[in-house]
Amino acid sequence: MYKVGIVGVTGAVGLEFLKVLKDRRFPIKELRVFASERSKGREILWGDERLRVEVPSYENFKGLDLLFFTAGAKVSLEYVPIAVKAGAIVIDNSSAFRMEKDVPLVVPEVNGESIEYPRGIIANPNCSTIQLVMVLYPLHRVAGLKRVVVSTYQAVSGAGLRAIEELKRETRKVLEGEEPTSEVFPHPIAFEALPHIDIFQEYDYTKEEWKIIKETRKILGLPDLRITATAVRIPVIRGHSESVNVEFERELSVEEAREALRRDLSVEHGLNLWIVSDNLLKGAALNAVQIAESLIKS
Amino acid sequence: MYKVGIVGVTGAVGLEFLKVLKDRRFPIKELRVFASERSKGREILWGDERLRVEVPSYENFKGLDLLFFTAGAKVSLEYVPIAVKAGAIVIDNSSAFRMEKDVPLVVPEVNGESIEYPRGIIANPNCSTIQLVMVLYPLHRVAGLKRVVVSTYQAVSGAGLRAIEELKRETRKVLEGEEPTSEVFPHPIAFEALPHIDIFQEYDYTKEEWKIIKETRKILGLPDLRITATAVRIPVIRGHSESVNVEFERELSVEEAREALRRDLSVEHGLNLWIVSDNLLKGAALNAVQIAESLIKS
Repeated sequence: MYKVGIVGVTGAVGLEFLKVLKDRRFPIKELRVFASERSKGREILWGDERLRVEVPSYENFKGLDLLFFTAGAKVSLEYVPIAVKAGAIVIDNSSAFRMEKDVPLVVPEVNGESIEYPRGIIANPNCSTIQLVMVLYPLHRVAGLKRVVVSTYQAVSGAGLRAIEELKRETRKVLEGEEPTSEVFPHPIAFEALPHIDIFQEYDYTKEEWKIIKETRKILGLPDLRITATAVRIPVIRGHSESVNVEFERELSVEEAREALRRDLSVEHGLNLWIVSDNLLKGAALNAVQIAESLIKS
Repeated sequence: MYKVGIVGVTGAVGLEFLKVLKDRRFPIKELRVFASERSKGREILWGDERLRVEVPSYENFKGLDLLFFTAGAKVSLEYVPIAVKAGAIVIDNSSAFRMEKDVPLVVPEVNGESIEYPRGIIANPNCSTIQLVMVLYPLHRVAGLKRVVVSTYQAVSGAGLRAIEELKRETRKVLEGEEPTSEVFPHPIAFEALPHIDIFQEYDYTKEEWKIIKETRKILGLPDLRITATAVRIPVIRGHSESVNVEFERELSVEEAREALRRDLSVEHGLNLWIVSDNLLKGAALNAVQIAESLIKS
């Protein structure tokens, strides 16, 4: 039994952590929850227990075996090193440490065996990446990935609880014939598709697109994989979808392809995939808890 | 000045035809409007004129120079030959004749010069195809298309006025916490993405996906073009988007690429495009009227 903490418990993914830990009967001796100063002292119901929200600090982390961080990269950059110093193993849901060489980036079904974490930190990948590698990995083992083209259809919950509220509020406005205004997203999202997630970076790819590209390469252990991504936010509340075109090195047997997947006729050894996943569960909280479970097993 | 008719005037695209013909000052001597028995006798306002809806028939078509059909493939299959026999040139917005060898499939900016129409019929392409070839064609001229991978984000208005109402009705239900039920679409569309437009056909591609593939090849005059499509309906009212990955035969200069487009780094001579268009205008009514305008000019 373990002493476990969640940093960022009041967010969309934080609330899923509470649920997933309970549902999967994670062996918890004590659960402690953390959020920003604003939520300090607030009570959170977890089964029959009432958990009081604390602020993250070295003193408050002391004695914890395991800490899940899901409060964004800025909070992780500041408090993950403190948590490690306080003696906890950290599973970090933010992008802060994902690409660092000595931090493993883990999807248990793909690269979860014998995880090494010299810095005491394990990173949980981006939600779009997790569901992508879940499908690419078994296909890669059979036929060898040659090139991947992915277009995402991402739910607003990936941007947090405020984003869900924004979509609902804007949608009501549009239905009443009024002009919506946006705060969370760069443009109104009600009845719109926005090919703009996070900031624009090198070569006019967005940060979200670079995450998908770089994290997929790292998790699959294919640093030179030819992969390109277009990340799009659509007015869906929960559940990311992805249209994925894959070229393989070798032919997949017709049976293997027909069973679950769609053939791409425009290229030899190709497949078109439509990948759907709950972005808050396998895309975030569930994957992190699965990482913790594989730590316990080993 | 011409005697012009619209068959299917009460639909989503039919209403756009009225607007586009007026806005572009199409040289009309007389405008006649047609719809099903249900709408017979209904009055439609067009500028200062009141047009009375007639049912399609040989007698009613007599004397017309030009007829726009936008009432679906079934109506076109039955009445387009009758319209031609009655002496009209037909510009057909349905899929009924698009792939027939002696029927030109036209996007004026792409293949609109010196149109030949031996059967008196010119076909207007699928909305997703039109906006795609508008972008592919100029790029093809510069660098030569090698392979195209397209994923669509299609608005519900492509499925007609009832589909718009269904999205709004379902959305209100979901916002009130109730379960939506669908009639027009195979599944509820409110806050959902449906990778299922029209029926499934060979190789589990949908009919909509086959339209994009085959029509693009025909319009560009590239019968062997390697192109694959995944067509997805999203909860947007108006305006289709497309995430398009293109491989070219030759390199595009960095300037040309940077100016308007996004580089694909996963393959030599590649680009990622995000193509947006009004599916009811350039995707339907506007393109058809432009075809008519080029007929008049020649």
